[in-house]
Amino acid sequence: MRNINEDTITQAVLASMSHCSDERLRTVMTSLVQHLHAFARDVKLTEDEWFRAVRFLTEVGHITDDRRQEFVLLSDTLGLSMLVTTQNHRKPAACTEATVLGPFFVPDAPEYALGDDIANGAAGAPCFVSGCVVGMNGEAVGGAQLDVWQSDEDGFYDVQHEADTEGRIEPQARGRLHTAADGTFHFRSILAEAYPIPHDGPVGRMLEALGRHPWRPAHLHFWIQADGYEPLITHVFRNGDRYLDSDAVFGVRSSLVVDWDRHEAGVAPDGTRMDEPFYTLAYRFVLNPRGDAA
Amino acid sequence: MRNINEDTITQAVLASMSHCSDERLRTVMTSLVQHLHAFARDVKLTEDEWFRAVRFLTEVGHITDDRRQEFVLLSDTLGLSMLVTTQNHRKPAACTEATVLGPFFVPDAPEYALGDDIANGAAGAPCFVSGCVVGMNGEAVGGAQLDVWQSDEDGFYDVQHEADTEGRIEPQARGRLHTAADGTFHFRSILAEAYPIPHDGPVGRMLEALGRHPWRPAHLHFWIQADGYEPLITHVFRNGDRYLDSDAVFGVRSSLVVDWDRHEAGVAPDGTRMDEPFYTLAYRFVLNPRGDAA
Ligand SMILES: [Fe+2]
Ligand SMILES: [Fe+2]
Repeated sequence: MRNINEDTITQAVLASMSHCSDERLRTVMTSLVQHLHAFARDVKLTEDEWFRAVRFLTEVGHITDDRRQEFVLLSDTLGLSMLVTTQNHRKPAACTEATVLGPFFVPDAPEYALGDDIANGAAGAPCFVSGCVVGMNGEAVGGAQLDVWQSDEDGFYDVQHEADTEGRIEPQARGRLHTAADGTFHFRSILAEAYPIPHDGPVGRMLEALGRHPWRPAHLHFWIQADGYEPLITHVFRNGDRYLDSDAVFGVRSSLVVDWDRHEAGVAPDGTRMDEPFYTLAYRFVLNPRGDAA
Repeated sequence: MRNINEDTITQAVLASMSHCSDERLRTVMTSLVQHLHAFARDVKLTEDEWFRAVRFLTEVGHITDDRRQEFVLLSDTLGLSMLVTTQNHRKPAACTEATVLGPFFVPDAPEYALGDDIANGAAGAPCFVSGCVVGMNGEAVGGAQLDVWQSDEDGFYDVQHEADTEGRIEPQARGRLHTAADGTFHFRSILAEAYPIPHDGPVGRMLEALGRHPWRPAHLHFWIQADGYEPLITHVFRNGDRYLDSDAVFGVRSSLVVDWDRHEAGVAPDGTRMDEPFYTLAYRFVLNPRGDAA
């Protein structure tokens, strides 16, 4: 420890953790230190680059608050989130694939009944969503809890809007529903549109420096939970979107890309009269039984 | 990009940077992404661990302000700072070794004349520091700028004290001096004592979870700058300190460990009468000529 140099420093740090009683923590931190040091050696990180990294991370921390999570954006844009998602959800090919949670999920979203309009005033073309939740053998999953959330036609989630004087934001295009006994669900919302991830902060500057754009293809988020099944966090993506092949957070999986069908004004699936064009979307979610996860 | 899985995600992220016009940035980020992903794969990072990492980094960001730099502490305690320091300061063995800057340096410290007491009221046993700054061939380096800083007897740097109502903190045990024409310097300060790095935040909790202590052996910081020479950021460590073999930031190098000599009350090196015991310390700094860096 008194003669640490660039060759011995890694071993010294690992040795310092020899009294760690949490075996998993020690495993994780041992690997982290080895890879962190290997990175610094590989590129021969300079002191100026180190200073800039400290400043960058400080900015990421300072812009992060209850409603903006820049570290999640950083993880998403570096592909770490998608890697963690996929390696923790190996499952039979018949099951619906998972994708990233993203930074815009909000716990305890308002409850809606099947058929309700979850847009709650969010701007966008009307969209009628329907589908079902089933298990691996096609069995209906009744009473499954669906959290659904999406951006509006301007590309903003409700949580990106200005709060009122009491700091509250009205939940829009976000809600919680439950499947009927036969596993089906249906609700009204708005058409999903492509949007840029928040790029007025350090992660946006990083993307620009890397020659990358901040856009995500249009999608609708689902988090499905049901007793006896592995929770499913995923999106449904809109076929034809120009960003399907360059999603800023690497979340697209072709099995999740579906058509949003456009309809001229007329009678909507819920029987109401629409005097503007509207869209429909249907998706069948297949859950993995608990305990079958790889 | 539409069929990303845990095997192809890394390549997809690297491909997304193919339009980056800054070649060095692309090199650094390519290596960073590869090591970050390799780490996540090696330990099969779980989603819960990922959430906890995001929360940890958020806390590190939120406790960081103008006077507390928790990301530097994190880098220091993971040995990254010392690695970056050493790999950027390969130099002839005759030169004084560098060590970490640490989080307590403050730019534009008050100027002092040789012989002044830089303690400025900081609590601690009196200490008289002297020495010289020379080049590789023993040539005196006159007019070299010395930034010196240290903690007080309670283990706190001035910047860790409460600010006044205007947000100002009186600089204590911190100052800037210049060597005389013959390369020598001398000043009065206080005895350096071992201190714990700030451990009431997320980095402190990390150290505790890893079974590590937060202590650093007693030391005095120097940043020496002179025309024609590579800047030298280093410490002088106090021989006999119990933490020399377990420095929380891995900064000790045996060539930097020296005796602080204790003297009974009497006449101090500057000719003043001391009615309490005092200490003396001398060190010879050898600078590396610019351009000789490996
Ligand atoms: Fe989204
Ligand atoms: Fe220090």
